[in-house]
Amino acid sequence: MPTIAIIGGSGPEGRGLGLRFAIAGHPVILGSRDAQRAREAADGLLAIHAGIPVSGAMNADAASRADWVVLSVPYEGLRSTVTDLAPSLAGKMVISVVAPINFTDGNPRPVLVPEGSAAALTQSLLPESKVTSAFHNLSARELLKPDEMLHGDIIVNGDDRDARLATMRLAEDVKSLRGVDGGPLANARCVEEFTSLLLYINRTYKKRSTVKILGI
Amino acid sequence: MPTIAIIGGSGPEGRGLGLRFAIAGHPVILGSRDAQRAREAADGLLAIHAGIPVSGAMNADAASRADWVVLSVPYEGLRSTVTDLAPSLAGKMVISVVAPINFTDGNPRPVLVPEGSAAALTQSLLPESKVTSAFHNLSARELLKPDEMLHGDIIVNGDDRDARLATMRLAEDVKSLRGVDGGPLANARCVEEFTSLLLYINRTYKKRSTVKILGI
Repeated sequence: MPTIAIIGGSGPEGRGLGLRFAIAGHPVILGSRDAQRAREAADGLLAIHAGIPVSGAMNADAASRADWVVLSVPYEGLRSTVTDLAPSLAGKMVISVVAPINFTDGNPRPVLVPEGSAAALTQSLLPESKVTSAFHNLSARELLKPDEMLHGDIIVNGDDRDARLATMRLAEDVKSLRGVDGGPLANARCVEEFTSLLLYINRTYKKRSTVKILGI
Repeated sequence: MPTIAIIGGSGPEGRGLGLRFAIAGHPVILGSRDAQRAREAADGLLAIHAGIPVSGAMNADAASRADWVVLSVPYEGLRSTVTDLAPSLAGKMVISVVAPINFTDGNPRPVLVPEGSAAALTQSLLPESKVTSAFHNLSARELLKPDEMLHGDIIVNGDDRDARLATMRLAEDVKSLRGVDGGPLANARCVEEFTSLLLYINRTYKKRSTVKILGI
């Protein structure tokens, strides 16, 4: 099974995805800017689920050792992170989980990315990688509870069809998730921005919401 | 019950919404640039469902006689339509169903609206109206079959909370639909753009898809 590095893997979303991918059998390397934090994050996942194939490493080391690389970093740091890691990402599938959201006034608001979406920005910085956008709209808290059923669909965007299908299959390696083909990166903006809509809905309804595509 | 004008009411989406609102008991005026076409559209709905409170009129006439006004026009014509009708829309709730989509290369692609969304553009042109964004992602074909159950949620955005709640109630006047509070117009862009994502999904899966918010 392909080895997956998670850049920003010591954050809750990154750890949650890492846990689920590792339970599915993928070797997972949690990346962090700090090697010690990365190892602690991996130990934390082993404490939740003993024996899964997870380890920790510096971001650049994790990226260079992996087949596929998941970007789970705040939007503000995306450009510099991707630029730094570019040599290790060439030729690889890069999955962006980044949602461009601004919290400055306390309320989540979508940030307009000049390139169209965080994933399209990433693709523009990595012409030799196959960038997809996916795994938005999942709750880190639920990801980190391996017995919790996950609801909702993983809408996958990307300009390379094979990478899109591989990302959909990765989604379906996680129990109870469904991958949905969302087409090219031009369609990624609304999926990324839906994250901030769902955060609004969660606050208003005091529930944890997610999105499902009906009729397919 | 408030009288509802539908600007662009002779198009399939406008007729479909008009049919469902009239069945729910709302007096509906289908507006068109052409009085004859508006009357024919109203007659067409009466042929589908006899006795419903529907009539046809020129757009400006429809707008001035209504309590609430639904905008169901192509994005390209939105600015000029709204500017022309502005005097009749002041003080009223205006519901935008407009999705900014470009079909020039044969594939639906979201158009970036400088104001953020078609609804936000409309609000900027109508400072004395209460603009909401809703009723995206419904199939005109299904709307026009009154026995067809509608699936999916109506996510409502708008900066005025009362207008948002009124629009949600209007959605729930239509059998089997649910209104979801999507917050301010800043959140409308992703809902509008989702229309073009769903069109892509419909083509790819050869199905008619819609969106549901799970967990609330």
